[in-house]
Amino acid sequence: MTAQQVEDLIHLGFAAKRKMLAIEEVRPHYVRARLPYRDSMLRPGNVLSGPALFSAADLVMYALVLSHLGPELMAVTANCNINFVAKAKPGDIVGEGRMIKLGRRLAVMEALLYSSAEPETLVAHVTGSYALPVKG
Amino acid sequence: MTAQQVEDLIHLGFAAKRKMLAIEEVRPHYVRARLPYRDSMLRPGNVLSGPALFSAADLVMYALVLSHLGPELMAVTANCNINFVAKAKPGDIVGEGRMIKLGRRLAVMEALLYSSAEPETLVAHVTGSYALPVKG
Amino acid sequence: MTAQQVEDLIHLGFAAKRKMLAIEEVRPHYVRARLPYRDSMLRPGNVLSGPALFSAADLVMYALVLSHLGPELMAVTANCNINFVAKAKPGDIVGEGRMIKLGRRLAVMEALLYSSAEPETLVAHVTGSYALPVKG
Amino acid sequence: MTAQQVEDLIHLGFAAKRKMLAIEEVRPHYVRARLPYRDSMLRPGNVLSGPALFSAADLVMYALVLSHLGPELMAVTANCNINFVAKAKPGDIVGEGRMIKLGRRLAVMEALLYSSAEPETLVAHVTGSYALPVKG
Repeated sequence: MTAQQVEDLIHLGFAAKRKMLAIEEVRPHYVRARLPYRDSMLRPGNVLSGPALFSAADLVMYALVLSHLGPELMAVTANCNINFVAKAKPGDIVGEGRMIKLGRRLAVMEALLYSSAEPETLVAHVTGSYALPVKG
Repeated sequence: MTAQQVEDLIHLGFAAKRKMLAIEEVRPHYVRARLPYRDSMLRPGNVLSGPALFSAADLVMYALVLSHLGPELMAVTANCNINFVAKAKPGDIVGEGRMIKLGRRLAVMEALLYSSAEPETLVAHVTGSYALPVKG
Repeated sequence: MTAQQVEDLIHLGFAAKRKMLAIEEVRPHYVRARLPYRDSMLRPGNVLSGPALFSAADLVMYALVLSHLGPELMAVTANCNINFVAKAKPGDIVGEGRMIKLGRRLAVMEALLYSSAEPETLVAHVTGSYALPVKG
Repeated sequence: MTAQQVEDLIHLGFAAKRKMLAIEEVRPHYVRARLPYRDSMLRPGNVLSGPALFSAADLVMYALVLSHLGPELMAVTANCNINFVAKAKPGDIVGEGRMIKLGRRLAVMEALLYSSAEPETLVAHVTGSYALPVKG
């Protein structure tokens, strides 16, 4: 699937009224996406919040599953582990998703998150497992 | 601190325009809170989204730290692990936070999440570590 | 299954030459087990090592799955998250396992670990997911 | 530090009677190590056990901290998250450790584990946080 196809599929599934994210690149086992900045992403101390970062990681990993399995809107997050490693200054959230293991029942993935305000500084490292639908 | 004090402190810190959560109970090492339902919490398939649940867990654990340390708005999430164990039907998110270990540098906590639509069904189990500010 | 049955099943499966653990109590959704102290459990600083504690948690959660599913020696650990919250002084490792969610494909569990040297002090909190064999 | 220096330091700290691991390569923010096969690493089903893999990851990440901070034998594992992604056939365990973030109080690292029996197949992906001693 192309980046635009993955992006359209996500917005279709969420019946999104606004642009949730832009898929910038899709390669086998790799996706890069950008979540546009919104004031609601901030927490006290003028940094991007944990939930905003989690949301970015979740969407990036979901895009990664979609890019491999097609319109698989029923893949479900089973487990997620997040290490927050630096304060994220206000900006877009850029996420790189990488497939660690694509099994029959579980997809295990990694997402690295950055703020566009400091694009060289990793702010969070996430690993997640998605349960894949059992094929009939 | 009382439940109302913890609730006020959270809303003050977030400069919140709307009621983000209601703290229902505060006891030593225990907090129960409720996040009111909003359409933005849904994901495809008409269930509460991972980010909405993460947000609830994060706020519950933050409330737990606040209730123990006072106006400690600079406590920062270091690590979070979420197991999503059941689909969460649309409703308020009710979270119970429990202190596992309150150290000098880290607070390790557990949060159990439920949907008000099925209050007996655990939907997510979360453990998190918050880095505590170093006292000067 | 009784505590003795679960204990026998584990030792049978591992073709164990020595007593690996003693199952002290089995109840629905709960197991308590004790791993006898061995010098090999120590790490520098005269505390019980991370791997020794992980091993205890893994055996406790495995016992919990066995107690629910019978001779299910093919259950496999998918994911494990460990928070080490206090130094564990040399002693037996006592572990309490609790079932968080027993699904068709995954069992999500929690294990709390203690050293017999300080039985009131939690040393590690573990959550784990085991993949259950697909029934034919 | 050289690979041999890191290897010697680990064995010194553990007062090891046998060779626990061989450090094969040390670069800034990267370590590769090999744990020699032992029958005790096996679990039912003739695969390398979770605890053996955890032990390998723990030693690899410890070596990574040592290579950056010198004889820092008091660094302590705070949190560890392991995704087991493939069965590990009997063999040496080869681990690659990578520094994700080296902070003042916490080192966050990643370890990728392989069995020498199938050196191209990732068997486990681990992230861990070590608490670093507070400098006096």
